[in-house]
Amino acid sequence: MKIAVIMGSKSDYPKLESGIDLLKKFGVDVVVRVLSAHRTPIELTEFLEEIKNDTDVIIAAAGKAAHLPGVVAAQSLIPVVGLPIKSSTMDGLDSLLSMVQMPSGIPVATVTIDSSINAALMAMQMGSIKFPEFKEKIADYRREMADKVLEDDASLR
Amino acid sequence: MKIAVIMGSKSDYPKLESGIDLLKKFGVDVVVRVLSAHRTPIELTEFLEEIKNDTDVIIAAAGKAAHLPGVVAAQSLIPVVGLPIKSSTMDGLDSLLSMVQMPSGIPVATVTIDSSINAALMAMQMGSIKFPEFKEKIADYRREMADKVLEDDASLR
Amino acid sequence: MKIAVIMGSKSDYPKLESGIDLLKKFGVDVVVRVLSAHRTPIELTEFLEEIKNDTDVIIAAAGKAAHLPGVVAAQSLIPVVGLPIKSSTMDGLDSLLSMVQMPSGIPVATVTIDSSINAALMAMQMGSIKFPEFKEKIADYRREMADKVLEDDASLR
Amino acid sequence: MKIAVIMGSKSDYPKLESGIDLLKKFGVDVVVRVLSAHRTPIELTEFLEEIKNDTDVIIAAAGKAAHLPGVVAAQSLIPVVGLPIKSSTMDGLDSLLSMVQMPSGIPVATVTIDSSINAALMAMQMGSIKFPEFKEKIADYRREMADKVLEDDASLR
Amino acid sequence: MKIAVIMGSKSDYPKLESGIDLLKKFGVDVVVRVLSAHRTPIELTEFLEEIKNDTDVIIAAAGKAAHLPGVVAAQSLIPVVGLPIKSSTMDGLDSLLSMVQMPSGIPVATVTIDSSINAALMAMQMGSIKFPEFKEKIADYRREMADKVLEDDASLR
Amino acid sequence: MKIAVIMGSKSDYPKLESGIDLLKKFGVDVVVRVLSAHRTPIELTEFLEEIKNDTDVIIAAAGKAAHLPGVVAAQSLIPVVGLPIKSSTMDGLDSLLSMVQMPSGIPVATVTIDSSINAALMAMQMGSIKFPEFKEKIADYRREMADKVLEDDASLR
Amino acid sequence: MKIAVIMGSKSDYPKLESGIDLLKKFGVDVVVRVLSAHRTPIELTEFLEEIKNDTDVIIAAAGKAAHLPGVVAAQSLIPVVGLPIKSSTMDGLDSLLSMVQMPSGIPVATVTIDSSINAALMAMQMGSIKFPEFKEKIADYRREMADKVLEDDASLR
Amino acid sequence: MKIAVIMGSKSDYPKLESGIDLLKKFGVDVVVRVLSAHRTPIELTEFLEEIKNDTDVIIAAAGKAAHLPGVVAAQSLIPVVGLPIKSSTMDGLDSLLSMVQMPSGIPVATVTIDSSINAALMAMQMGSIKFPEFKEKIADYRREMADKVLEDDASLR
Repeated sequence: MKIAVIMGSKSDYPKLESGIDLLKKFGVDVVVRVLSAHRTPIELTEFLEEIKNDTDVIIAAAGKAAHLPGVVAAQSLIPVVGLPIKSSTMDGLDSLLSMVQMPSGIPVATVTIDSSINAALMAMQMGSIKFPEFKEKIADYRREMADKVLEDDASLR
Repeated sequence: MKIAVIMGSKSDYPKLESGIDLLKKFGVDVVVRVLSAHRTPIELTEFLEEIKNDTDVIIAAAGKAAHLPGVVAAQSLIPVVGLPIKSSTMDGLDSLLSMVQMPSGIPVATVTIDSSINAALMAMQMGSIKFPEFKEKIADYRREMADKVLEDDASLR
Repeated sequence: MKIAVIMGSKSDYPKLESGIDLLKKFGVDVVVRVLSAHRTPIELTEFLEEIKNDTDVIIAAAGKAAHLPGVVAAQSLIPVVGLPIKSSTMDGLDSLLSMVQMPSGIPVATVTIDSSINAALMAMQMGSIKFPEFKEKIADYRREMADKVLEDDASLR
Repeated sequence: MKIAVIMGSKSDYPKLESGIDLLKKFGVDVVVRVLSAHRTPIELTEFLEEIKNDTDVIIAAAGKAAHLPGVVAAQSLIPVVGLPIKSSTMDGLDSLLSMVQMPSGIPVATVTIDSSINAALMAMQMGSIKFPEFKEKIADYRREMADKVLEDDASLR
Repeated sequence: MKIAVIMGSKSDYPKLESGIDLLKKFGVDVVVRVLSAHRTPIELTEFLEEIKNDTDVIIAAAGKAAHLPGVVAAQSLIPVVGLPIKSSTMDGLDSLLSMVQMPSGIPVATVTIDSSINAALMAMQMGSIKFPEFKEKIADYRREMADKVLEDDASLR
Repeated sequence: MKIAVIMGSKSDYPKLESGIDLLKKFGVDVVVRVLSAHRTPIELTEFLEEIKNDTDVIIAAAGKAAHLPGVVAAQSLIPVVGLPIKSSTMDGLDSLLSMVQMPSGIPVATVTIDSSINAALMAMQMGSIKFPEFKEKIADYRREMADKVLEDDASLR
Repeated sequence: MKIAVIMGSKSDYPKLESGIDLLKKFGVDVVVRVLSAHRTPIELTEFLEEIKNDTDVIIAAAGKAAHLPGVVAAQSLIPVVGLPIKSSTMDGLDSLLSMVQMPSGIPVATVTIDSSINAALMAMQMGSIKFPEFKEKIADYRREMADKVLEDDASLR
Repeated sequence: MKIAVIMGSKSDYPKLESGIDLLKKFGVDVVVRVLSAHRTPIELTEFLEEIKNDTDVIIAAAGKAAHLPGVVAAQSLIPVVGLPIKSSTMDGLDSLLSMVQMPSGIPVATVTIDSSINAALMAMQMGSIKFPEFKEKIADYRREMADKVLEDDASLR
């Protein structure tokens, strides 16, 4: 499974790191890029052209008027997972609405604000349609989460 | 490609119809169900069990405190597209937040409020990871949309 | 009076502690559990089955797309007090709407964001319908609050 | 089981009617009053005094800066279900926040905006702590809701 | 001029202090009280009765579901200035809406969230209708503010 | 008592009419003007100069980025009641925030969105500080409101 | 003065018409195009290339996740006036935030939701920096607006 | 190119500094003033009169009920860039709406909350309509931004 992760600004990297690590831990072939819909549109288009035949899912993260996922989605047939990043004003609502409210015809699969873990998991679930071995890995991950909950539960009782 | 469409209430059907029609028009094998996370949880679980090996994507639509997509996502490894339905109060914000803000570990791929077309297209893009012939159909659809824009453009000039 | 407190994640415990302490101080038989609607649905269902005949009220706390109270409410006839927990984005609005805006038929009795004291008091008021001795305890608590206000008032004059 | 329904203005009655009918259909002894926290505070206090020993639950409905449920809750030990009514501006958000965000010590059990059905069901669930025969009635109601979902499901398949 | 300042909780005092100081500096006869609409309704009513003939304006400050100003307004013919206090969630929106959106018949004169200076100035402007000597004091205060702006302006040029 | 009513646009007149009628019915000397902070700033200033010595209260109504009340407040020592008018977008939130959130030093006494009745009553309550005979009229009005509530109450019982 | 008006969808034309008429009435050389950032990105880029040397201002209108103005701004040095269009959900907030909250480096000059008159006037004010004769036309327009206000004022007095 | 920067309060200066520096670095003739629409309206009007013939663009920054840009726009034919400043409550939404939602006829070109860089760039883009040499400077600035993105991109790969 091959997943491309694109962020609009390197300053978003710390919020993306745990999701990228998860993709790698699961054995996904990950490409991480900083490419801006507004500042480097040509390089973005070139990258999308380059990956169009061998990449399964794209994760695109952005903040404020977060156009990156929508612009990527418009230029590629690969499904795009949109990760809204909370910036210093508006508590993430601006990024969320700029991403999820895409006009008819070009959807973005938007996940939880600031949760690169959820972006990574959704991307792998999409990829698992073709690579069913990932379903088992995600099932394992869920079992671990469940075990953690049960452990926490035991510790409180 | 096999896609299951689940709505929490039959009253949401009119908003889902155009998306379901699009899926059928594209040749997707569609199953449409009314199943509620809160009112028929057992039937929902049974249905998810039943489809777990032969369905590629699930579309789940709900309004208000829209738990259906999240509950489905928690019980299935199949990727879930969440479609927030606007109800009579809060202008769709309640459904959107109840769906997109899923806690870490169980993402829902949320799309535009009330846009079953976008839910259908995202579901087919996901499925196209495995069934690449759909990429061409989506490309055609986009070309038609573009032609419509260009036609509208010509008509205004 | 027997009250079960369920939280979706142990990380919410610090916000719940003062409410749990209040329940214990009032002499309520309290059971505290960490159980997730999405990560441990089976254990949650088992717990709800287990307590169905001897528990008077359930308090369920959760953040973000806070489905736990609604999922509990759907599986139990015991009244559910929902406590929305504020997470790092959206200032609590996501948890509040995900909890209070339950669709017709399965209500959740939602209280103040992050106030486990209010969740505990509401749960005990519900329980006092059957155990009227608690009405006096709550009246005492209110008198103490009033005395505190009057003391503060005196200190400022 | 005895339940009092208080609305701040008779203009809210149409939104309350279905909930009141449900209470009556279930055999609850219902008292319906129009009493305003701001316009008839004395009559409100008198009514609360009058019902304090024989009423199990109070439902209070109000719109805009919806103080009624909080004022009732402050004057009575009976648990109060708050029903936020959407008015012509702010889409119900003002009533919801004015009701649910009660300060520490005086909770209001807030339910879905404009859903008197949910207010009625929550009130009866509270009452069922003492009158367990209502649990069965609510279970029946839920079964009917489930049957309706399954019927709708069958009609769509 | 006599102005009463009422806060729902002593914890709001730090936000009120600068406004109270301004009232005193202007020579207003100020009474400061901690009285809660929900916790000490009787003492609140007594206080309102006590001041009804000799107080010109009431300032009432509260947070969350901020009922205090509305409850005061309902029990007194003295005009009430409402000061919404921002609490730990919802960024002040809950207090603002709970205060300003009063139903028809019982208005509250709501001012800027957390600005006790504005509450004090509005109260004195109201009082100046009867005590015109205060108009001059407010004009002086405005001149000082203007001088401060002009000084800041000079310092930046 | 003399009250000036200023609206930014004649299109707001229908929402103001009931409040103006109430002022007249109470015997207030009312002047009604259409004057815009942005379109007729000079005429506005002239009018404020003209009324500065004989008017007790100003009511200013505006929609959208509702600057009128703030601009009036900055140019006059007469207390200003701000009436936010809901326009075709943003459900009144824009007018409310543009009015109530005045910076330190120039408060506007903001009332319920679209409620000219509340604007009129607040203006008269302010004026009653000097003209105590209005307190009795307001008390009568409240008694009528209370009687209406009690009548509605009786009709429902 | 040459101004290009771009809308993302012809369905927005009715909301743009009055602004386009105003531009024409003022003697602006107007080009009106339907071009979508997502559906016809190549034609959009071609158009921007085509007009880059002879157009003074671009007006771009879009709804929902309104990327058009930002995408145009990123590809052109011509200043872009962004006009947010209210769609069927979220009351215009999504379009507004998607437009105004542009990341650092690529601003969009955003005006009032749904007001093509304001978009047209701002575009002409920008153009008047080079074509000062337009300043007089705008001054005339403002005088007409002022006269209309004064007429309305006279009619109400 | 001559640009005037007006802020309502010197406390906003730190947020404006980077934008002012950018204007200077580009060789713009910058005048920076602290002038308040409410506290120093006369000096504001005088300044606007003074600059009316030799200034190309005005940047106006303000927080809360941010009237400054609108008041400036109403008194000048020079295009006004509005910069909303986030204050301690409401996360910038109050300033944004008070600025962008200007009534028909007097637009303000509103940019990203707290981004004086975007205010400066938009002002220079407007000015470049007359001074085309600035287009090249802005193109250089964009190239630098793009280089920074590409550098960040290289550093992450």
